[in-house]
Amino acid sequence: MSNFINDAKWRYATKKFDATKKVSTEDFEILKEAIQLSASSYGLQPYKVFIIENPEIRAKIQPAAWGQTQIVDASHLLVFANITNFGDAEIDAYIKNLSETRGIPVESVQGYADFMKSKITTLPEEARNVWTAKQTYLALGNLLNAAAELKIDVTPMEGFEPAAVNEILGFDQLGLNASLIATIGYRHEEDATQHYAKVRKSNEELFINL
Amino acid sequence: MSNFINDAKWRYATKKFDATKKVSTEDFEILKEAIQLSASSYGLQPYKVFIIENPEIRAKIQPAAWGQTQIVDASHLLVFANITNFGDAEIDAYIKNLSETRGIPVESVQGYADFMKSKITTLPEEARNVWTAKQTYLALGNLLNAAAELKIDVTPMEGFEPAAVNEILGFDQLGLNASLIATIGYRHEEDATQHYAKVRKSNEELFINL
Repeated sequence: MSNFINDAKWRYATKKFDATKKVSTEDFEILKEAIQLSASSYGLQPYKVFIIENPEIRAKIQPAAWGQTQIVDASHLLVFANITNFGDAEIDAYIKNLSETRGIPVESVQGYADFMKSKITTLPEEARNVWTAKQTYLALGNLLNAAAELKIDVTPMEGFEPAAVNEILGFDQLGLNASLIATIGYRHEEDATQHYAKVRKSNEELFINL
Repeated sequence: MSNFINDAKWRYATKKFDATKKVSTEDFEILKEAIQLSASSYGLQPYKVFIIENPEIRAKIQPAAWGQTQIVDASHLLVFANITNFGDAEIDAYIKNLSETRGIPVESVQGYADFMKSKITTLPEEARNVWTAKQTYLALGNLLNAAAELKIDVTPMEGFEPAAVNEILGFDQLGLNASLIATIGYRHEEDATQHYAKVRKSNEELFINL
């Protein structure tokens, strides 16, 4: 049996966290590495991840997230922020990183840089923002899966007002947009939803063979 | 050490598959279950997954996917198709499934159904299509991670012409849109990119602590 499947069955969108339990620094570093290793379009990782432990900031965010208690009760709050108006500067930074990581001259990958720029910077800004936001879902997926292996609970959230969170965190000035929230910690024993059967489409409903 | 991290370091976007190697039925069922267990917004799984082994269809798709050889050489080709114009019918189907899965009357979750409808069906169609497309990235993430545990290679692809793939697969008539492609199989020993160092943003670049 695959460990992945067992872990995926174990996880659920936690509704109530045990506010007395903190994720250890060691475990949290593993979660960060899982996010860092995420696949992304061209490997560009067009986002930042805000790790928010500060209780005052979390209290400010809670009303912008439908009042959900996980925002303040969880051990850690993460906000995945996609880069808006992604362009040449970000691609050049990636190419510099690639050049340094692999010990090859920037000139040798200039054609690749130009190719990426031709594909990306020709898109309208709105389409680029959608594209950078999509990449945060892959990073969130890595977080969910890595956390499940460690028996750490995560609630992925789209249920918040992006404009309000952007305002609280000053994202507009940073060229960022709040794409996803994840609260991380340990399920409260009183959270009844942990016992609910998972609702999933059947094989026949989900897959089509050609 | 986390198995997740080891597997994530092992995986890479395979450029050349060994066309002689097929993923076993047993392993492929695990990959399907990983996709099926993916988190999604409200658990709605607003997509279908096309499993394409037919070589003629794959040959047709290849030119619409920048001619990439993985399309025809991989063991399996998957197309993640997000549902377009997602609406009341899909939410009602989910509620029926929830009711049956958990053995509770539909009436007891009618308020939840109405809540989801108020949040989703009030969005403009384009925003709903973006939202369903985003969910396919979580499913793809599960595929990548489950495959890595089994030492099965996957190439995630945004590099294709959605309109052309939609046309080939008749997606417009099905109310679907080609969101992502994944080719699945085993890396060719001649694929030099498997030896390249991973390029990732540093901790300092990727994470911000508040």
